[in-house]
Amino acid sequence: MRLNASERGVFPIAPTPFDAGGAIDLASIDRLTDFYADSGATGLTVLGVMGEAPKLAPDEALAVAGRFIARAGRLPVIVGVSAPGFAAMAALARSAMDAGAAGVMIAPPNTLRTDDQIVAYYAQASEAIGADVPFVIQDYPLNFSVVMTPGVIARIVSDNPSCAMLKHEDWPGLEKISSLRGFEAEGSMRRISILCGNGGLFLDFECERGADGAMTGYAFPDMLADVVRLSGSGAREAAHDLFDAHLPLLRYEQQPGIGLAVRKYVMARRGLIASDAQRRPGAAMSARAVAEVEYLLARLARHDPRAAVRPL
Amino acid sequence: MRLNASERGVFPIAPTPFDAGGAIDLASIDRLTDFYADSGATGLTVLGVMGEAPKLAPDEALAVAGRFIARAGRLPVIVGVSAPGFAAMAALARSAMDAGAAGVMIAPPNTLRTDDQIVAYYAQASEAIGADVPFVIQDYPLNFSVVMTPGVIARIVSDNPSCAMLKHEDWPGLEKISSLRGFEAEGSMRRISILCGNGGLFLDFECERGADGAMTGYAFPDMLADVVRLSGSGAREAAHDLFDAHLPLLRYEQQPGIGLAVRKYVMARRGLIASDAQRRPGAAMSARAVAEVEYLLARLARHDPRAAVRPL
Amino acid sequence: MRLNASERGVFPIAPTPFDAGGAIDLASIDRLTDFYADSGATGLTVLGVMGEAPKLAPDEALAVAGRFIARAGRLPVIVGVSAPGFAAMAALARSAMDAGAAGVMIAPPNTLRTDDQIVAYYAQASEAIGADVPFVIQDYPLNFSVVMTPGVIARIVSDNPSCAMLKHEDWPGLEKISSLRGFEAEGSMRRISILCGNGGLFLDFECERGADGAMTGYAFPDMLADVVRLSGSGAREAAHDLFDAHLPLLRYEQQPGIGLAVRKYVMARRGLIASDAQRRPGAAMSARAVAEVEYLLARLARHDPRAAVRPL
Amino acid sequence: MRLNASERGVFPIAPTPFDAGGAIDLASIDRLTDFYADSGATGLTVLGVMGEAPKLAPDEALAVAGRFIARAGRLPVIVGVSAPGFAAMAALARSAMDAGAAGVMIAPPNTLRTDDQIVAYYAQASEAIGADVPFVIQDYPLNFSVVMTPGVIARIVSDNPSCAMLKHEDWPGLEKISSLRGFEAEGSMRRISILCGNGGLFLDFECERGADGAMTGYAFPDMLADVVRLSGSGAREAAHDLFDAHLPLLRYEQQPGIGLAVRKYVMARRGLIASDAQRRPGAAMSARAVAEVEYLLARLARHDPRAAVRPL
Repeated sequence: MRLNASERGVFPIAPTPFDAGGAIDLASIDRLTDFYADSGATGLTVLGVMGEAPKLAPDEALAVAGRFIARAGRLPVIVGVSAPGFAAMAALARSAMDAGAAGVMIAPPNTLRTDDQIVAYYAQASEAIGADVPFVIQDYPLNFSVVMTPGVIARIVSDNPSCAMLKHEDWPGLEKISSLRGFEAEGSMRRISILCGNGGLFLDFECERGADGAMTGYAFPDMLADVVRLSGSGAREAAHDLFDAHLPLLRYEQQPGIGLAVRKYVMARRGLIASDAQRRPGAAMSARAVAEVEYLLARLARHDPRAAVRPL
Repeated sequence: MRLNASERGVFPIAPTPFDAGGAIDLASIDRLTDFYADSGATGLTVLGVMGEAPKLAPDEALAVAGRFIARAGRLPVIVGVSAPGFAAMAALARSAMDAGAAGVMIAPPNTLRTDDQIVAYYAQASEAIGADVPFVIQDYPLNFSVVMTPGVIARIVSDNPSCAMLKHEDWPGLEKISSLRGFEAEGSMRRISILCGNGGLFLDFECERGADGAMTGYAFPDMLADVVRLSGSGAREAAHDLFDAHLPLLRYEQQPGIGLAVRKYVMARRGLIASDAQRRPGAAMSARAVAEVEYLLARLARHDPRAAVRPL
Repeated sequence: MRLNASERGVFPIAPTPFDAGGAIDLASIDRLTDFYADSGATGLTVLGVMGEAPKLAPDEALAVAGRFIARAGRLPVIVGVSAPGFAAMAALARSAMDAGAAGVMIAPPNTLRTDDQIVAYYAQASEAIGADVPFVIQDYPLNFSVVMTPGVIARIVSDNPSCAMLKHEDWPGLEKISSLRGFEAEGSMRRISILCGNGGLFLDFECERGADGAMTGYAFPDMLADVVRLSGSGAREAAHDLFDAHLPLLRYEQQPGIGLAVRKYVMARRGLIASDAQRRPGAAMSARAVAEVEYLLARLARHDPRAAVRPL
Repeated sequence: MRLNASERGVFPIAPTPFDAGGAIDLASIDRLTDFYADSGATGLTVLGVMGEAPKLAPDEALAVAGRFIARAGRLPVIVGVSAPGFAAMAALARSAMDAGAAGVMIAPPNTLRTDDQIVAYYAQASEAIGADVPFVIQDYPLNFSVVMTPGVIARIVSDNPSCAMLKHEDWPGLEKISSLRGFEAEGSMRRISILCGNGGLFLDFECERGADGAMTGYAFPDMLADVVRLSGSGAREAAHDLFDAHLPLLRYEQQPGIGLAVRKYVMARRGLIASDAQRRPGAAMSARAVAEVEYLLARLARHDPRAAVRPL
């Protein structure tokens, strides 16, 4: 099962569950993976930045990826392999593919500046991991300080047949989706899958602009799947109504630094993982922040019963 | 009328209205200022980044500030005076104060890195503009790449009696508000006014954390004033209900680059300014973006009749 | 007298002389300008970063530029007009040209990232200042964080007939000179003048790669002129011998932050300006640094008698 | 053999030798290590940025470090362990120490901004690798965009008894050395070893300011050792004479990007390694650059016979 350019739906960015002592919680990996599958996810992404990948030793990283892959069954799993050098990237990509991954995701190093540097980087990365390994471009300027124009993305897609997908999290990014779909319509770029990140903050309109779905880690992936489905079936008002109900919490979760703590807290409250523990270093929620999230959940539960967690 | 550390409420960041030919639209300045006053604004900020200040020649900048000040009457007006050097900053500050400004706002240059550099910069800036000129710290790391800890802000406040206010737009920033109010409670920092930016994206909770209000340019300053008022009077649910209704549009407007185009478009649709024209260079809205904003306005109008603009 | 694409030789970056009280020292402007002319300079650049331009009020900036221009006589003077916005840039450019400047120099704002953004910026800048005003591209990635490939420079040159010169201070930059001269040789780019900055640190080889000379502020512009002349006349060994003798001091002066203090100190010691005073904020030399520079001057004087300043 | 705060002399930054096919050249590791020992090096640093560490797979990195350590005998070896996360850093540090390393070197991630963030990072890193593992702070703002004041370094030294050394490559940095030695003299900071980087560009004065020597990879480590020795024994003129003779080449080698190619080229020409091959991605020297380096070597050989390589 290899990732291809026609993927659609929701690939949740999976957190790595730890127990309170910092050990990897394999049982929660299983439970979470089952939940994703039951929630309408069409795939899964592991070992991303929000998966605390840099806090895992190399053997742990493989163990985590392997467990997700084994449990995911028919769902394709994308493994983040961004690394400071191509040797480590290639080693991790090879191991991940051997373990059954469907493809890998590659973010650009923050030293890239010019169009040509970005294009060259992806050509070298693809050569390093092997031209047969499907890869995802992670386009996240806010985090990586690398800005890719639609034209640069089109060059990467043209140069690398194994480029199957764009994880789109430019900000603002709606026009970029329209531009890329325009390239496809006019025949100047082959079709790729576009899944959107940024915590889902613009998912309502991204779907309408031509994105294929979402790849993000919001604690309600079931909502993301519903919005993508509703939007795709023409139920525009219903899609926006559901999305808007979640927006206050979604926005709260999307804060840098503290966001992962919020996400894991809500996932633990929903029972999707056993503990919201992060490995160090990690931002912790203050008592005030906990109370704010509980308040947001209570308000959300009026519209979406899935947010009705049991009282603390 | 000088800015002081007890300011509260909403100081809208005013855009600079232009006509289609790029000339300053003085009539719209008057209309907009009147609208602010009628909407419950307690002050006004002009010549910020979102006021297209860098696109104004020095004499135009003064003309714009002067017109706002003259029309604002009893409302205090803060003038943005950030500049690459202290000579230009001091000249603009002097002119603005002579024209009747209540104070000035100063952003740190993006070359500052260490705590001491930031503290030294504000000491030098205050000396340059004059120790009697009240100033506002603009704390906006996402835009300026300068990160100020609560401790650094406390040092600036201690060192500079004329520091009256913090324009808080760190992200995430809720804990910073709590920390600063904690310093005040324990007596290690004198009280300052804290008004929040970031397009208002967290205003609901910022008020609850102890912020005095908002300083941002969202196209519905009347909503911002309502939320601050409701929150301050203990009507928590009502405050959140109103805020949440606006959040889909507010989020759309907060996008970098395109945000000012959206803001001016909505303001023009509301009749607050005659034209949404920006001076070049400025990002323009695509037809798709216009349709999206109209859709958001229509959805918002179900909850807040102020969003009910006449059909296109 | 308009700047054109065939300029050669040395355009010193002139410091702005102040007296100990921070007032502009007009007599030193005259003395310094005369020295430049007598030293073989073929032009002059004023109001650059190293000219403390940001510390000058707008009217002072014009007064400084005007004085240099008036005194320079037949020597073309380039005026730095980089500004946060096009309105200020256009106003300063117009004033400078009215005062007799030969052209202006424009640095890119540090927010530019993609090739297209850089190309668009120069097109808009040229439109803002007037298509008839000759301009210089300042390519200084270390300072501005904007990286221009040779291809981007070629696009700017093609798009803007008024682009006459490149101030080349990429680092490393020798291959860029070779690439641009290669474009010219193959006919894909019209000829432009290339003068090199970076404190002159690679001037020896830059001349050999095809640069037309130097535009930098090293305290011995007479040495720079000699090296360009020797290199151009085929006296390779003599050019390198002279350059190498200066390299220890030149390197010392090229340090960021402290560099301008060293430069002004040496210029004052040579009698080119009356005082080494800088306007605040400015890095000062420690007693140790002064002793180190004196030591370097003494060592240099064994090879180049121009460094033999009178004892302290 | 553990690194301690009294280290002096020269710890060359060792390149990783590859053969033309990209395989690790173990024989050249041995030859190079012997040369370092014979040249007066007092230690050795491996797996730094200039050691192409990011291009090595984890097992290769350990093999390279182990080979250097085994061959170095009595010379202490520092291993670079900077990594995106503490898990990988701790794993590499443990392996390196098990293999006989004397200590490790840690660079700050480029996301750190405030003083407290930097101090906290080193506390967490030291805890991750083990409080008994001696570590070196790598202070290299030009590359990492993290600026450490002398006060921040003093806090790290105070907080972490295992901090033994500062690799000083701030730029400009002379005053920082004086400040730190001043802290020691006044008793506010315990003594640490300070070895200087930046390609050695200021080694002449760094020694005089109180640095203990050099940690850099210039292709003539024997010259670095001589300069440190001469400077330490009071032979000031001789130290500067030798340093100045090398400065034209040293400056050429210090260029970012192309610098490692130049360094390996010269080392291969000197017979210290078999090939100047780099693993991809790596900047290659043009024919012009090769000719320039040969010219610089020939000029240098007049002063220092060690530069007299056999004709090409």
